[in-house]
Amino acid sequence: MKIIAAKKILKANEELAGKNRARFNQAGILTINMVGSPGCGKTTFLEALVARLAGRAAPAVIEGDLASTIDAQRIEKLGVPVVQINTEGACHLDASMVAAACDSLELDGVDLLVIENVGNLVCTAGFDLGEHLRIVLLSTSEGDDKVAKYPTIFQKSDALLVTKIDLLSHGDFDVDRVAADMKRLAPNGRIFHLSARTGEGVQQVADWLLGKSRRREGGLAG
Amino acid sequence: MKIIAAKKILKANEELAGKNRARFNQAGILTINMVGSPGCGKTTFLEALVARLAGRAAPAVIEGDLASTIDAQRIEKLGVPVVQINTEGACHLDASMVAAACDSLELDGVDLLVIENVGNLVCTAGFDLGEHLRIVLLSTSEGDDKVAKYPTIFQKSDALLVTKIDLLSHGDFDVDRVAADMKRLAPNGRIFHLSARTGEGVQQVADWLLGKSRRREGGLAG
Repeated sequence: MKIIAAKKILKANEELAGKNRARFNQAGILTINMVGSPGCGKTTFLEALVARLAGRAAPAVIEGDLASTIDAQRIEKLGVPVVQINTEGACHLDASMVAAACDSLELDGVDLLVIENVGNLVCTAGFDLGEHLRIVLLSTSEGDDKVAKYPTIFQKSDALLVTKIDLLSHGDFDVDRVAADMKRLAPNGRIFHLSARTGEGVQQVADWLLGKSRRREGGLAG
Repeated sequence: MKIIAAKKILKANEELAGKNRARFNQAGILTINMVGSPGCGKTTFLEALVARLAGRAAPAVIEGDLASTIDAQRIEKLGVPVVQINTEGACHLDASMVAAACDSLELDGVDLLVIENVGNLVCTAGFDLGEHLRIVLLSTSEGDDKVAKYPTIFQKSDALLVTKIDLLSHGDFDVDRVAADMKRLAPNGRIFHLSARTGEGVQQVADWLLGKSRRREGGLAG
């Protein structure tokens, strides 16, 4: 019988995440761990973001999914370096998977590495990947009670992206309720409203990330 | 240091799930494990279902969430017996939580017990709760690639409910792609299209469940 010691795994992950972060710092790469429910719009946001970064920063992407290469294919079409991790059932990425993915990515000249985690609003909260920023996405079609019902992941995020804001008129999503719940859990967390379909808000997120990237290179963040 | 043996936990869960199922069988209760992403519409469907069952079957509900009693309050308003389980961070319900919840539910006279699992398209797949049927919900706003990307849970489900079908015109969700992917993973799985908002399809699911319930009492299923 195989024995798995949860605490030991978490400690090992933490150490490896630290190594990943040191590697990113040395290479001058700002790294983002992007989390959210299945279908909240992570890949679609990423496609819109890449368009907004053109000529301003060179992105690379790590895609995490249980199965398939659907997401990596979408990113590849944009000419962005991408690696797909298939977790084969595992419910979140961990630092060792990210380290392995980085070994097969050409990171020279990359400014911004976005890691799209497995679609999961629970388990991704517990695992540091070595990122500088954690961004959580919540779509308006998911309902405005989700920050209150899944507090852990919001508490540990640097920004909340409320996505599919163009669907607001089709439901009863209360953006103020979400903002209040987020404020309570993560007082310093930024909140953006965006629609990857109409383009609303994507530029603001791109500008915020580029600002973080520049500050980090100046040694102020990270 | 605490050592957790994964296989041992799964085996213990299986045994306890069997005990739960025997208890439900003896009481003549058809039990459903309802799974899906956060915000796919589980509670809203449940509200619509309860209305359709009125006078035909007596339901009870177990609600699973990381935190809050938001969902249980919604069900309580309908006059349906309900217990809220707060997992305090855990990403899925297990058979022991359900057994404890049953101890505090009045199950006399109940025909149909719906267990709304934690919103999670990954981890809920691995844990039998003692149910007779597993139903997975996927909303059109989540995108039509989710069956391919999260195969495990669909493979283990008796029915797929494609929810928020009223939003179909606002996106590019391909119902045929989803049906084909589901057919491949679960050839005997039923597929329903529904909108809890417009009421479309809810009656069909109610009729299907009542049919299962009657058959089970006749000793043909379970």
